[in-house]
Amino acid sequence: MKDYANMSPAEVRALIRAGEITTPTAGMSLGYAQANLVILPKDLAYDFLLFAQRNPKPCPILEVSDVGSRYLKKIAPGADIARDIPRYRIYEDGVMTGEYTDVSEFWRDDFVSFLIGCSFSFESELLNAGVPVRHIEEGCNVPMYITNIPCEPAGVFSGNTVVSMRPIPYAQVTTAVTATAAMPRVHGAPIHIGDPDYIGINDISKPDFGDPVTIKPGETPVFWCCGVTPQAVLMASKPKFAITHAPGHMLITDVLNVDLKNQ
Amino acid sequence: MKDYANMSPAEVRALIRAGEITTPTAGMSLGYAQANLVILPKDLAYDFLLFAQRNPKPCPILEVSDVGSRYLKKIAPGADIARDIPRYRIYEDGVMTGEYTDVSEFWRDDFVSFLIGCSFSFESELLNAGVPVRHIEEGCNVPMYITNIPCEPAGVFSGNTVVSMRPIPYAQVTTAVTATAAMPRVHGAPIHIGDPDYIGINDISKPDFGDPVTIKPGETPVFWCCGVTPQAVLMASKPKFAITHAPGHMLITDVLNVDLKNQ
Repeated sequence: MKDYANMSPAEVRALIRAGEITTPTAGMSLGYAQANLVILPKDLAYDFLLFAQRNPKPCPILEVSDVGSRYLKKIAPGADIARDIPRYRIYEDGVMTGEYTDVSEFWRDDFVSFLIGCSFSFESELLNAGVPVRHIEEGCNVPMYITNIPCEPAGVFSGNTVVSMRPIPYAQVTTAVTATAAMPRVHGAPIHIGDPDYIGINDISKPDFGDPVTIKPGETPVFWCCGVTPQAVLMASKPKFAITHAPGHMLITDVLNVDLKNQ
Repeated sequence: MKDYANMSPAEVRALIRAGEITTPTAGMSLGYAQANLVILPKDLAYDFLLFAQRNPKPCPILEVSDVGSRYLKKIAPGADIARDIPRYRIYEDGVMTGEYTDVSEFWRDDFVSFLIGCSFSFESELLNAGVPVRHIEEGCNVPMYITNIPCEPAGVFSGNTVVSMRPIPYAQVTTAVTATAAMPRVHGAPIHIGDPDYIGINDISKPDFGDPVTIKPGETPVFWCCGVTPQAVLMASKPKFAITHAPGHMLITDVLNVDLKNQ
């Protein structure tokens, strides 16, 4: 097992491009922000950008590519959007029709890529503050749930908010809130603390995406808006064609997490 | 003189709609946010929304209307975008061709309205922190300057950043920074402190928009990104048709300034 944690983002992206990494990216290139991906044709780009503007907590935009370009100028110069993510999903009419480790064969000149902040960025803040991050401890993907909290619709896009969940010891809940509130570009403060049922999650042991994690006695589940929300929205809004990352399989950017803090 | 300062936003907007107020809006409905306006046809809306996304300091979006709608759902329910601003400007091919107190006769079904945060919102924070706000003291419009700081281009839109300037006593500069940094949705922290020449302002006594103000001994000019930036961009990018507010003549929203702080 190579030491992905201490490799640079460019090194890890090169291994992903070469097909040597196809796993979730949590813990790779520690200290660097990871990003969610949505690729849409230009005729849907305005509605999606407006959707993101109206729903900044689940959809904090880090960068939008130029039309047709597979390259990013700001957050990952040199990256190829169509090849540098370990696993992609293609949605047709709202149905996931396949997973791929390379989507360059599907690329079109009218595609626009949206890169969206990821809660992995604030996990190092939580760890630095002494707050445990259970899915890292248990070596699995973070559990994610579709809630009953509607997003603000925009054009053809509507749907409910997806959240990620981390069990937090009661004594550390306020620390978890303040540590993440300082990072609004990666979802910011929690959207809910406590009862899963209150936000429409009927069974906390059965996440809609990712893996279940242990909630220990003396801990409460804390929920943050999640960049997988666009995938729930794509399923609900059924655009003809869209590409996303597979949950947990992110773009590793050249942006340091600390640079995503309030300034 | 009526007491506009203590009227509700809806009351002031009604007087504006009736043509009884045609002046700058600084100091009206104290405590409520005011907003800059850009109205563009839908075919330019994506480029402009992307421009705002790429330039959040000068162009922090508070709300985007639905296509063709003159109404706002969030920040000023009940307001009529085409009539509730005291003075509008029409730009054709980048040239300002007229000022109007009502633009309803120009309204088209393909118009999209962008409402952008205004530095007036943080002036009450400065005053509360004991920091003087010179243009309020002198009863004039805030001075605004076109700088040499390029915005990040997006599609057809490009141009330089416009800033507003407030002279701040040296001992209070850090207070002015921290008070405004807490309000990123209304331009946030200053973009420059000190030498105007450094950002391309050759004569501080001749603002490009608004009025000059006195800089006293022991004070330094402090510059914040300004929501008039889109007007400089319209002049530079020359779209066929656009409507904006006249500088200083803002939409008074129902949003409290305190609700624009970091949460």
